[in-house]
Amino acid sequence: MRLCADWSIIMANVSVLGAGSWGLGLALLLNNNGHNVTVWSVLKDEVDMLQTEREHKRCLPGVKIPDSITISGDTENVINSADVLVLAVASPYTRSTAKLIAPFVKEGQIIVNVAKGVEEHTLLTLCQIVEEEIPCAKVAVLSGPSHAEEVSRGIPTTCVIGAHEKATAEYLQNIFMSDVFRVYTSPDMLGICIGGALKNVIALAAGIADGLGYGDNTKAALITRGNAEITRLGVAMGANPHTFAGLSGIGDLIVTCASMHSRNRRAGILIGKGYTKDEAMKEVQMVVEGVFSAKAALELSKKYNIEMPIVEQVNKVLFEDKPAAEAVKELMLRDKKIEIDNSEWK
Amino acid sequence: MRLCADWSIIMANVSVLGAGSWGLGLALLLNNNGHNVTVWSVLKDEVDMLQTEREHKRCLPGVKIPDSITISGDTENVINSADVLVLAVASPYTRSTAKLIAPFVKEGQIIVNVAKGVEEHTLLTLCQIVEEEIPCAKVAVLSGPSHAEEVSRGIPTTCVIGAHEKATAEYLQNIFMSDVFRVYTSPDMLGICIGGALKNVIALAAGIADGLGYGDNTKAALITRGNAEITRLGVAMGANPHTFAGLSGIGDLIVTCASMHSRNRRAGILIGKGYTKDEAMKEVQMVVEGVFSAKAALELSKKYNIEMPIVEQVNKVLFEDKPAAEAVKELMLRDKKIEIDNSEWK
Repeated sequence: MRLCADWSIIMANVSVLGAGSWGLGLALLLNNNGHNVTVWSVLKDEVDMLQTEREHKRCLPGVKIPDSITISGDTENVINSADVLVLAVASPYTRSTAKLIAPFVKEGQIIVNVAKGVEEHTLLTLCQIVEEEIPCAKVAVLSGPSHAEEVSRGIPTTCVIGAHEKATAEYLQNIFMSDVFRVYTSPDMLGICIGGALKNVIALAAGIADGLGYGDNTKAALITRGNAEITRLGVAMGANPHTFAGLSGIGDLIVTCASMHSRNRRAGILIGKGYTKDEAMKEVQMVVEGVFSAKAALELSKKYNIEMPIVEQVNKVLFEDKPAAEAVKELMLRDKKIEIDNSEWK
Repeated sequence: MRLCADWSIIMANVSVLGAGSWGLGLALLLNNNGHNVTVWSVLKDEVDMLQTEREHKRCLPGVKIPDSITISGDTENVINSADVLVLAVASPYTRSTAKLIAPFVKEGQIIVNVAKGVEEHTLLTLCQIVEEEIPCAKVAVLSGPSHAEEVSRGIPTTCVIGAHEKATAEYLQNIFMSDVFRVYTSPDMLGICIGGALKNVIALAAGIADGLGYGDNTKAALITRGNAEITRLGVAMGANPHTFAGLSGIGDLIVTCASMHSRNRRAGILIGKGYTKDEAMKEVQMVVEGVFSAKAALELSKKYNIEMPIVEQVNKVLFEDKPAAEAVKELMLRDKKIEIDNSEWK
């Protein structure tokens, strides 16, 4: 670790765990920032392929991985040599990967989780899972509107880093920030994690509206009111309401609901056109996280006794074969409301 | 005025002042809701044309205006006969129209303003202008993500109505709400007006980013951080911060920044491609409100001593010929910040 005079930032050894599109996108960013970057995968085939081809044709096609980035499958060495670990495995593998690396992690070593989700049976966020599995680590989170393909092409992008300690957040801000990647800090890890996990449910709803042939008005309504539901829940869980108006909240939600990159939105479009959830998931040929997050969100809304009408209707469409158009109509005709809870006239 | 049993809502005489796309879109909605609707225009040619053709080919092409909607240019009668006035003239004509109708408005008559803007020399919102010109009226505001073309086609849409008195807001909620137009109420008229007026500056910025060839990440960043600036200013002026996370804030901003219907966004795209502001406005062939709002926003930021970096850079690009790419770079490399002001670590 050394100080670089012209940037006055710290040059660090960073190990990125997970060689999917987001892991590789961040590895490229960190490499460009001058850090020593290693990318690790648990899959031997993937390590061999990346070492030989220096490109991940399925996850990040057309993007060359420079030789200055090390590719490795040597778990112990990759963890030992790192100042910072970036945990970029897909959400279903967060717990198993945390378990796998736990024996090698040093007291106070920094782990930045960049995946999003809520575990269905425990209702824990991914950061809470990592903290549970590796209590000796300093866990942080990076989130925001950031398609990997765009980050890997140097398109201007902004994110937020949350950590329990200010020093950790500011250290990571220095590590990640560049002239195309602006990083803000936040103490509200919980709010960042909740927003990231539940956005996919709203992306499904937005896709369903698109599939029904509705317009920009409907989509903006679902995004805005969907975010209001997530905010209500997050506040009940202890998060800062303003986090949901930030980059990891509404910012990420906007990108997810607008983009055809989003599997959740694409699956939603098919469901809006009349496909069942299973047909839609088969067609999209990938894990559609929103389907699982929808269940978790409904459980959370019951646990914290929070009204989440959009989440409820998405669950009915997914798991009770309710026609999508009927669900939208029901949302439109709910009781007449004030927009902001607890903002009554004086 | 009478109660309709099956809807338990009030049937009212509504006069819509202004026969542009939004005025006509709302007239159609209110007509479908069963109200007696009159559309008024100050332009005799427009009144004649609408009475003959029952379609506004320039403003709302392909949409038939049913015979149950009266078209009239008789100002005194149109005002006298109305329970509710909907003020839907373009923002530069708000003050002159308010002056024109003032002599006929009765004590306590309700005027719902649906246009958006800030007057350049006074820095007043349009609702404040109407209140200044017609002190005897009860002024309210309707805002939200609502393209007129979509509303006129019955696409599900949500809006918020702000009024100083709860009874006024709830009365209007009943008048406007239908199974395709969901209306929330709010006491925060100021927040609703500020959000609506300043969104066009951010739409310009989003368009500029598109014109520069940047991606969804950049646009989501500008929308989110742009809304953070507007929120800071609004709060300093006395508005509720949560209003800016609502339909008239981020909701309307999302629709405006996503849509090619937005003149502001289209002008921004041209400026991002290297056109000057004047060339872009000539090409778009319409008033680009964001250009004027940008100046007003900068004045407000100085008056209230609020940091508005995106508004500042948009002004430099528009009025000081600063290259757009340089403005974006400067935004990315500002001082490293915490995301939410006053949310420090404990």
